[in-house]
Parts: sequence; structure tokens; C-alpha cells
Amino acid sequence: MAKNVKSKRTKARRLKGFRDISADDVLARDMMISRIREVYERYGFAPLETPALEYVDVLGKFLPEADQPDGGIFAFRDEDEEWVALRYDLTAPLSRFVAMNRDLPMPYRRYQVGPVYRVEKPGPGRFREFFQFDFDSVGTSSMLADAECCMVMCDTLEALGILRGDYVVRVNDRKVLNGVLEKVADGEALSDRVGLHILRSIDKLDRVGIEGVEQLLGPGRKDESGDFMSGVGLGAKQIDVVIRYLSIQEKTRAATCDALQQLVEGIAVGMEGVAELREIDEALRGGGYDEDRVVIDPTVVRGLAYYTGPVFEGVLTFDVVDEKGVTRQFGSVFGGGRYDNLVQRFTGQQMAATGASIGVDRLLAALQAIGKTQVDSAIAPALVTRLDKNLTAEYQRMAQELRSAGINTELYVGKQGIGKQFKYASDSGKTVAIVMGEDELQSGEVSIKDLRLGVELSQEIGSDRKKWLEEQPAQFSTPRSGLVKSIQEVLARYSAI
Amino acid sequence: MAKNVKSKRTKARRLKGFRDISADDVLARDMMISRIREVYERYGFAPLETPALEYVDVLGKFLPEADQPDGGIFAFRDEDEEWVALRYDLTAPLSRFVAMNRDLPMPYRRYQVGPVYRVEKPGPGRFREFFQFDFDSVGTSSMLADAECCMVMCDTLEALGILRGDYVVRVNDRKVLNGVLEKVADGEALSDRVGLHILRSIDKLDRVGIEGVEQLLGPGRKDESGDFMSGVGLGAKQIDVVIRYLSIQEKTRAATCDALQQLVEGIAVGMEGVAELREIDEALRGGGYDEDRVVIDPTVVRGLAYYTGPVFEGVLTFDVVDEKGVTRQFGSVFGGGRYDNLVQRFTGQQMAATGASIGVDRLLAALQAIGKTQVDSAIAPALVTRLDKNLTAEYQRMAQELRSAGINTELYVGKQGIGKQFKYASDSGKTVAIVMGEDELQSGEVSIKDLRLGVELSQEIGSDRKKWLEEQPAQFSTPRSGLVKSIQEVLARYSAI
Repeated sequence: MAKNVKSKRTKARRLKGFRDISADDVLARDMMISRIREVYERYGFAPLETPALEYVDVLGKFLPEADQPDGGIFAFRDEDEEWVALRYDLTAPLSRFVAMNRDLPMPYRRYQVGPVYRVEKPGPGRFREFFQFDFDSVGTSSMLADAECCMVMCDTLEALGILRGDYVVRVNDRKVLNGVLEKVADGEALSDRVGLHILRSIDKLDRVGIEGVEQLLGPGRKDESGDFMSGVGLGAKQIDVVIRYLSIQEKTRAATCDALQQLVEGIAVGMEGVAELREIDEALRGGGYDEDRVVIDPTVVRGLAYYTGPVFEGVLTFDVVDEKGVTRQFGSVFGGGRYDNLVQRFTGQQMAATGASIGVDRLLAALQAIGKTQVDSAIAPALVTRLDKNLTAEYQRMAQELRSAGINTELYVGKQGIGKQFKYASDSGKTVAIVMGEDELQSGEVSIKDLRLGVELSQEIGSDRKKWLEEQPAQFSTPRSGLVKSIQEVLARYSAI
Repeated sequence: MAKNVKSKRTKARRLKGFRDISADDVLARDMMISRIREVYERYGFAPLETPALEYVDVLGKFLPEADQPDGGIFAFRDEDEEWVALRYDLTAPLSRFVAMNRDLPMPYRRYQVGPVYRVEKPGPGRFREFFQFDFDSVGTSSMLADAECCMVMCDTLEALGILRGDYVVRVNDRKVLNGVLEKVADGEALSDRVGLHILRSIDKLDRVGIEGVEQLLGPGRKDESGDFMSGVGLGAKQIDVVIRYLSIQEKTRAATCDALQQLVEGIAVGMEGVAELREIDEALRGGGYDEDRVVIDPTVVRGLAYYTGPVFEGVLTFDVVDEKGVTRQFGSVFGGGRYDNLVQRFTGQQMAATGASIGVDRLLAALQAIGKTQVDSAIAPALVTRLDKNLTAEYQRMAQELRSAGINTELYVGKQGIGKQFKYASDSGKTVAIVMGEDELQSGEVSIKDLRLGVELSQEIGSDRKKWLEEQPAQFSTPRSGLVKSIQEVLARYSAI
């Protein structure tokens, strides 16, 4: 039955925009996820898991890229010729779940973590499969729920070791934006397409600056590479409305609300949005979340088309120097908003909902950049070598003894000689190797080799510790009966670092 | 920008064979996964994560269903018109990873957990998206690695609370099976197709019994539903070889090896397989894994086409009574084997490898059936109600105090009145509700309502405990300053259960 290996080889390759994640990154991410989970649970959210595949019409077209041909998603026809796709977020599947389970106690509060998939142009740090970690409250229109989203964002970032002042949560309201659009239209009808184009131009503020937005709202803009982006084609007076709006920068949330109200005065939807922001401000003050943590920021848009009210994002504000020596910021790592119509798509009945989502991979990269992800290595610290094949049973016993004592231990299961085994131990990151031959067996001893001593000594460490390490034997014999204790002692050399 | 909700509703529906997983099941699974991870790490395996999507030719056709038109996988063409698919296991992606990373220290030992996808006929407990948790050693042909797989299987099942005697690991070798096929062929050439058909017939032994296999090897077999399955069409003498092979049942692994050797005497590949099984037996004895845990069983085939040597499966042997009152066994929850040609498909060079995979969902169902998955509920135990909207800031403070004291606490963020809030608290599984109105605020008190007392008393509990519970007040007032302590006391009523 063993198939002949084909002479034609298959090329080992990975889809572009996808990646393999190494041991240390998996562990760092999982530790981060478990800390986030604690915060979400502290607020009373409980887990849910939905499938990676959903029907395309169930997911809906809400991505910023939704007007492009492929809609930004991995879609295909299933065996019944129905269009299915990999989920592009966790919110659309949640809405489907709620619509299918009409007897849930409301508000239904769940968290979910998992990979989502988008067909985007891959780039540094941009992947087509990436993790999101969401929490949502479905079934309440209270602004207290939106304010809570902002508070959970703050608590989460701080629980991960990001200091107050190194992040800010920025809040806006789509209704305010719609009010501004109505003011731009000035009594005329503004098509959805033009409205979307204006919002997209605003959303580019961080990248192109206020003059760039002005050009994008008008005739268009040429970027550094010479590429021309066509503009919305608004007149000077219309552009002025948007620029005035974007220039609102007050010291307090209350003052920002006042300025926004002045701008959209008399426009119902805009006034509604300002009232929502005032309610959020009040709840934030009640919770003790002041302007040093949460600000109202008129420039926040958020790309997803399903938002209907408040939108918010958690932004990291500290500088990091990347591997090319360029100083930059990580920017938005947390985003969310209110989406009161998503469940209604299925049920026909209003079902208010709000929530937020962590970009897990980007946040992890940020934590790694500031050294907030120390995790114990996943690598077993000890390797029991096999010098003499005939002693394998004794090697097995030693490995089991160490494991029983809580020391993760690998028994060498390859077929190479002892020299290669030592090299393997170093290459695979072991701290200590255990060696026993016929001689040691006869004398009731075992040899222990500290593989990390030289590495540690070559690093910059305090002189006291260096001196102490220099006095440690790199290789020594110990009675077989004292194996566990000796290994513990060697490992303890490094646990204090 | 708010899109008008379309009058045509989308039907909220899930793909067949997929499922949503509730809070308690997610938590039970994650706890199980973390225990399994500890065992894998104890042996020196470290995590790796590969993408859910891979190129179809990279995955290869190794599923039992691979000869069916759709090949049993979810495949589609990507934007470059290349065939891609959701992974159907974690072994093919591992082989791709190893082929792309030729400088890994060998043996490369990794674990990986995640969902895999197969287009199978959905049924009770059979899903198209299901979790696997694998560990593998790549780059060693030593049978010690295969024996270690069996030991890790045993340790894992016992770490999950499955008692010795309630499971068994069954080991066989594809080379022995190939030797039997060669004996069946008796000097003639046996096509791959016929060989596969014979192995599939053997693999059905558990379901159809020995007479069933006999029929399947011969003219064919009609099952209870009247469906006819065509047979291999072997002659009586040929069938007799297979039946003699399947009937080998010795008391010890060594004796089974002797009997197998007698059957395949003179057939090189078969003798090689027996020699491998003898080496595994020796290593198992060295590790102290006797016949009460690991047996050599000639009836084990394993469905995946990529196995080349030893194959093994972990089987639960205890009876459970299912919801229909039918006594049954869970059967195989762990499977694996040696696949020495999978990496070679890419590199052209031999790269020996062996490993095993847990069927996470099936094992979880088994643990749940025997009550081995007690987890703390994910549900926050406390709900701070909002009787008076004007006191929201005070409610927020109480919630934060409780959270700071380590009590997961939900602040009610809906808009219903207090009666509905109590119903919500019960429906969503809260233990305790906190109530404060203007009166309580003035008198510096807070009301606490135990929501679980009645439920507990209606259950069968010891009379001492019942008496004690009956003496507890279901609702009482406490000074505002003693809120945390009072809630802790109410929660303590149930922590001892």
C-alpha cells in the first residue's frame, strides 16, 4: 500500500499573506489572550465560538473593500452551489447567532477570539489570516453599554502592561458624521457613494494630513509615488464645513460636544449623535474614566459599513523604533462601535448592539516592542541523551523521574551520536543535558552538562552574578539518586535572571 | 451613510455540519486543551501554528475519501486561479513547514492545536469543522519515537482523569499489513486499488464483525438497511489468510509479534514490520508501559493514506449510556502513526517522522459523559442592577469595587425595569443581584438578593446542608461599606458544593 513517491516533486509553499507562527510567538499570544479574557470575564462577558465558514449573504458586505470585485473575502461555492466564505470578522457571525437564538437573555454578552480572513494586499505586519478578540453586548440601546466598551478597552490595555498615558481611547459617533454630511449637502441630496467617499477621505487624515484631506474632498491628490487619487469634487464652501469639523479640538469631552453641537445645530441626526456622545461622557465620568484615557475625537470614522452610532478605537501613542531605525507608532489596536441594524437584517426587528474588537497580532507586536511579553520558553529545559543504545530503559526512567518532578524533559529519540546530540541540545535551546554511559551506570553516577553557562557569561550581566556563574561547574557528576536535585540546582542558576 | 435596511430579509442559517459552541463547552474544551498541552510540553514538544488555508497540492490526497470527486476537502481557486483548501489535518501542513525550514534542529518536535475541515456526511457528533491536537517528532526513524507517541497518549488520557483500564492504546504496523497483502497476492501482483479495498474491509471489523469482513473480502455484503457493499472478490484461500491474521490475539505483545512473524515469515516487508513492533514493545517495557495500557493489535489500520510504518490509536473502553438509553463506547479518540514520505514529497529526501493526534471534540464529549470536566462557570456571579437611572455612577462604583475584589461582575446595561432585570439575572445564571435605590443610598445601605438559594433547595442535597441553606436569608440589607464582604459570603454558600 505504500505509494511510490512520485518523481515529480510538489513545491513546499505557503499562500501569500499567510504565515507560520513560531513557539515563542504562539505562547506570547496565548498568554496575552488569557489576560484579555480575564478582563472581559470580569465585566461579565462569556465565551462563544462560531464556525470559520459562513454563507456569504449571512456575512454581508460591510468591509471597506466591499465595493471591489472580490469584496475582500475568501469566497467559494459549496457542494450545493451556495456561496460560502471564511469570516472576515466576528461581528457578522455573532449577529447570525443571535438571530438564530431568539430566546437568549438580553443583553446577551459574549466574547470570542479566533482567526478572521481578508483578501488584502499583504505587507509588513499585514496578514490575510489574523486574530481578533471581540466582546459585545447585544440587545441594548443604552449608551452605558458603549461607554462600557471604552472602559473595557482601557482596562484591557492596562492589564497588558500598557501605562496610562501610553494609549488613548478615541470616541466619535456616526450620527454626528451623518449630520456633517447633511450640512455639506446643504439641502441637496447626497448619494450614498459620495457620502462614503467623504468618510473615506476623512479616514485618511492620519496618513495625508489636513491638506491632503482638503485635496481629496476637492479635485484629488497626488501622493509621493506620483499616484493620483481622484477627489470627491466638493466646492470650497462644502470642504470648509468638513475642515471646520475636523479641526474641533477641545480640552474636555463636554467642550468637544458643545463645539460639535454648534456645527450640526438644527440637523436632527447630528444632534442625536451629540446627545449620545454626552451620555457616553457622563457614564465615563461616573466610572472615573477621564480625558487622560478617553477623548471624543471627530476624526474617528472606522472602516466597517455596519456602524450606526458611537464608534471608538484604542490607540497606542508611544513611539517605537522599528528594525529599520524608523520611529513610528503602532496606532489603532482596538476598534468597535454600535451596529443596531445587523441582527435586523435577519429578523426584521430592531436589535441594538455594540462591541469592540482587538487586533490581537498588532497588539502583540506592540507589546513585544516594549518588552511586555516575557513568557517562559516553551522549550523543555532538559535533554536526556542516549550515549549507549543498550541503556535506553535507564534513560527512559531518568526522563520520567524529571518529568514527575515537574521538569519538562526531552528524551533524545534521534539516531545520531553523542556529539550531534549535544549540538542538538544547544540548537534546540536546552539548558541542561544528562549523560550516562556504562561507566557511570557501574559507579552509580550520572553526568550533567550545563549548556547555558557559556552563553550567559558572554552576555552583559552584573559583575556579582557573573562571578557567581563563573564559579559554577559547567559539567559535573552526581549520584544517580540525586539527579532531580542536581538538575533543579542547575536550572535555578537561570531562574533568577 | 446609514444604509436603509433592505425589505428582503437574509435568512439566518449556518452551514450544515458546522456548529456554534456555547460558553460552558468552550471553557471545558479550553481547560482540556491546557491539560493536554502540559503533557506534551512535559515531553519536550513546543507549539507551532500554521495557516488554515494551504495549497491543495501541498496538502496532498491522503484522506480516506480522497478517491471521491471532491476529495473530502473544502477547496476553491484563489485570485491567482490556484487551488487552495482548508486543511483537513495538521500533519500535511507540518510537513510543508519542515520542507520550507531545512535548518530546524532534528528531531523537530512540535505540537499544534486547531480546527481542521472535512467534507463528510454530517451526523450526531460528526462535524465538518473539528479540533485536533497533534504532537510529532520529525527527523527520526527510531522506533523509540513511535513508542513515545504511545506513552504520551497514555499519559494524556490519564492526565484528563481517564483511569488506567478505561482506555487502551492499540498498535500495529502498516508494513505488517503490507506483508499480509503480499501473502494474499501469493506471488501475483496486487493492484493498489485492491490492496486499499482489503485494508478498508479490515478497517470495518469493529462495525461489521469478522463474518462481515469475510463477506466484504469475498462477494460483498448487505447491511441491515439492505444496502449492498460490493466485495473485493478474493478467493477462499486468500480470505483465509486475512481472517487468520485478524484472529491473532495473544496475551502479550511479544507473543503477538511471534504469531505475526509466523504468518509473514519470508516476506521482507512483513518481517520488517514485526521487527519494528518488537522494538516498540521493548521501548514500552523500558518505560513501564505494560499490556494493561498498550497492546499490539493486528486489526488496527488507520484511514489516512500517508502512514508508512507503525500506526496507533487510543481507544476508550468504558461503556456510556447515551441520551437515548443506548449503551455504547466512544472508541478511538487518539490516532497516529509514522509517515516517512510526507516531507520527501517536497524535498526528494527521506525525512522520517511520526506523531499522533487527539480528536478533541470526541474526547471532550467522552469526558463530559463521565463527569470529568467540571469547570467554573464563565458566567459572572454578580449583577449590579440599575433601579434608578440617576444613580448609575454609584452602580458603576459598586461594580468596580466587586471587580477589584476579584468577583466577576456585570453592570446591567439594558433598559428594562427592575423586575425584568431580576429575570435577566436568573436567566443568565447569576448567583447574586445587588439593588440600591434612593432610600438605601440615604441610609448608607445596599440590598442583596441571593438568586440561587431556591434552586439549590429544590435539588437533592444532604439534609445538614439543606438545613443550613434554609437558614440563609435570600434577601438582606448590608451597609454599603460591607458590600464586597457580603457578596463574598453569599458566593461562599455555593463554593463548597
